[in-house]
Amino acid sequence: VNDIWIAGVGMTRFGRRDESLPDLIAEAGLAALADAGIERPDALVVAAMNPEEFTGAGNYASLINTHLGLSDVPALRVETATSSGVAAVYAAFTAVAAGIHRSVLVVGGEKMGHLPTPRVSEIIGRSVDPHERTYGTTMPALAGLITRAAMHSRGLTLKEMSQVAVKNHANAMRNPLAHFRELVTLETVMESRLVADPLRLFHCCPISDGAAALVLTSEPSAVRIAGIGQGMDTMAVRYRSDLTSFRATQMAAHVAYAMAGFGPERVEVAEIHDAFSPFEIISLEDTGLLPVGKAGRATLDGETALDGRLPVNPSGGLKARGHPLAATGISQIVELCWQLRGMAEGRQVAARVALAQSIGGLATNNWVTLLEARP
Amino acid sequence: VNDIWIAGVGMTRFGRRDESLPDLIAEAGLAALADAGIERPDALVVAAMNPEEFTGAGNYASLINTHLGLSDVPALRVETATSSGVAAVYAAFTAVAAGIHRSVLVVGGEKMGHLPTPRVSEIIGRSVDPHERTYGTTMPALAGLITRAAMHSRGLTLKEMSQVAVKNHANAMRNPLAHFRELVTLETVMESRLVADPLRLFHCCPISDGAAALVLTSEPSAVRIAGIGQGMDTMAVRYRSDLTSFRATQMAAHVAYAMAGFGPERVEVAEIHDAFSPFEIISLEDTGLLPVGKAGRATLDGETALDGRLPVNPSGGLKARGHPLAATGISQIVELCWQLRGMAEGRQVAARVALAQSIGGLATNNWVTLLEARP
Repeated sequence: VNDIWIAGVGMTRFGRRDESLPDLIAEAGLAALADAGIERPDALVVAAMNPEEFTGAGNYASLINTHLGLSDVPALRVETATSSGVAAVYAAFTAVAAGIHRSVLVVGGEKMGHLPTPRVSEIIGRSVDPHERTYGTTMPALAGLITRAAMHSRGLTLKEMSQVAVKNHANAMRNPLAHFRELVTLETVMESRLVADPLRLFHCCPISDGAAALVLTSEPSAVRIAGIGQGMDTMAVRYRSDLTSFRATQMAAHVAYAMAGFGPERVEVAEIHDAFSPFEIISLEDTGLLPVGKAGRATLDGETALDGRLPVNPSGGLKARGHPLAATGISQIVELCWQLRGMAEGRQVAARVALAQSIGGLATNNWVTLLEARP
Repeated sequence: VNDIWIAGVGMTRFGRRDESLPDLIAEAGLAALADAGIERPDALVVAAMNPEEFTGAGNYASLINTHLGLSDVPALRVETATSSGVAAVYAAFTAVAAGIHRSVLVVGGEKMGHLPTPRVSEIIGRSVDPHERTYGTTMPALAGLITRAAMHSRGLTLKEMSQVAVKNHANAMRNPLAHFRELVTLETVMESRLVADPLRLFHCCPISDGAAALVLTSEPSAVRIAGIGQGMDTMAVRYRSDLTSFRATQMAAHVAYAMAGFGPERVEVAEIHDAFSPFEIISLEDTGLLPVGKAGRATLDGETALDGRLPVNPSGGLKARGHPLAATGISQIVELCWQLRGMAEGRQVAARVALAQSIGGLATNNWVTLLEARP
C-alpha cells in the first residue's frame, strides 16, 4: 500500500447546535478543503450513523454533495454505527491506495440534540444485538455490565474511571470546539446521579451535534496515515469469551501496527473512545499503549494527562469534546493532525506519532488509526 | 487498476418473503461463498438502504457478519439509496484493487413487504430532495413528471414504455427467482390504474423482499469487472438542465467505459434499472447502448427482447424480477454473471460482455458496471 496523506482537516464546535446537519457538515468539509488548498476533490465519502431517523432525510451522500456545491463529485455513504467516521476514512483510503482517486474528502456528522433523549436512546439502541434488546438492554446498561465485570475481575476502581472524566474535562477547557468547557472534580463525578450501576452521569459522554472532515491525498503532506486497522466482535455480548477487554480493538490495533511496521512504543499521543469513562482504561490496554492492569493506576498517577508521559484525549475525548456519533472518529484524527502539525494551541503536546481508537456499537466494529508527522 | 474477478454469486427468490432480512442475506451470501469455493473471505461489505426503519435493527455490518458466522471478518455498510448494492461492490473493488484484501464478500438486501405501503413510500421518499418533499413530492410523482416531459420533448410514447413492462414480464416467466412470473399484455399495462400521470401501475416496479451477493477476488475466475463507474446529479430535480436524460448515468457510463478501454459497441446483454418502465428507454440511450431517440422504437421492434440483437433485462428487471432496493444492483450483476457463465437456464443469451446500470434516488447516484467473460 502506497503512502496516503492527510492534506487538510476541519471540524465544527461540538455541542447543542441549531444549524441543520448538512450545514454542519458543509462547515467542516469546506474548512478541510480550504486547509488542504483543494477546491474540488476527486470523490467524497460521507459518514452519518442514522440521518434518516435523527433528521428525516436520506440518500445522504447525494444530499451532502449537492449541499457542498460538488453535485458532480462521486459520493458514497459508509456506516459502522458509532465508528462510522473512521470507516469512511478507510473507504477513502482504499480508493486512493488503489490509484482510483488522488484526493478524497471525508465528512461525518450527526445531529440529535433536537430530539427527546428517550428517542435518541432508542435510535442508538438499534446498534445492540436484537435478541439482547428484547430484555430491555440499552447501550449504557451493557456498558455498566462490562464495567462491573472489570471492577470484579481486573480490579478497576471507581476512582480510576472517574479520574478519566476529570482529566478529559480539564483538557476540553483548552479546546474551543469542545461541548463542555468546565472543570469537574473527582467528587462531582463520583457523586453524580446513577445511570447504569456502577456508571454515573459523569462517566457517560453527552448527546452532541457536530461534524468533522479531512482530505486524503496521494500527494505528500504534513501527516501520513501510517496504518489503519478494523476489528470485529460478535453483535451479542453474551457470546463473548471476555467481557472486560474488546477483541475488536485488539484486532484493529494488530492490523494497524502491522501496516505501520511499528508498535505501540512509538505512540506519543492518543485519542481514545471514552463513550463511557472505563472504556478509556480498557482501550489503553487493548491497544497495547499501557500494560494490562496498569492503565487505571497510570491514569491516577497523571501519566495520561496533558503533561504526562502519554497524553490521552487532549481534545477532551468523547466525554467532554462530545460525541456526535459519525463525526467522532474523524474528529479524533483531526485533533491528532493538529497536534502533529503543532497547531493545537493551548493544549499542544510534543509528538510525531499518534494513535486514534474508535468503537462501533458495543465494541462490535472498532478501528485503530496510526498517524505520523512527515520527517 | 489490477483485474478484479467475480468468483461466485448467489441470490434469493425475490418477492414477498417471510424470512428475516439477516436470514435472506445469509442465504444469498452463503450461496455466493459456496459458488466461489471460499469459506472465509478477507472482508465483508453490506448494503442495505434503510434497515433501521424497515426492520428496526441497525449496526448492520456487525449484525450480518455475526449472522453469517463470520464475526471476526471486517465488515462495513455502504449506502447510496437504491443503488447501494453497486456502491458496496465498488467499496469491495477498491479494497481488492488496493491490495488490502484478496477476497471480499458483498451482500445486499432489503425487507419492506411486511410494512403498509404508505410507510414504505415515506421511507423511500427520504431519498428525494427535502425542499421538494415539502410540496408533497414522491418518487413516483417525480418519475411521472420526467416521463411526461420525455413524451413532450423527445417523442416517447405510452406504447413504447408499456412494451418495456411486457418484455420484462415475459423474461421473468423464465426466471425462477423473479417476483412476478406471469405474462402481461400491452392492454393490461396501458389500462392498469393510474399511479402518477402518465405512469400506470404496470409501469412501476413492485415492493419486493430479497437479497443478492457476490464474491470479488484478485485471483482470476470466470468473469472480470472490466469497468465500474459512478455518476451524480443534483438531489433537487428542479436544478437540472435536462429532465429527460440522466447526467448521473451518462457520467457513470463514461467512467466505466474509460476504465474498461472499450465502448458500448462491445456490450451484448444489459441489466437496466427500470424502476419505472420509461427509465429503461432513457437509460439505454444514456449508456450509449442505443442512439438517442431510438430506444423506444427498438423496444417495440423487439431489439431488446430475449431473442433480439441486444437482450435487456433477461432477469425480468426491476419491474418483474423485483426491486429489494440494496439487493437490486447486486442482483443485476448476479444475473449477468450467470449469463456470461452460460448458467441462465431457460433464458440464456449469447454474450461475452455485459453492462449493468443502477439508479440511486431519483438518478442522483448512478452506477454502470461492465463485465467480461474470461477468454
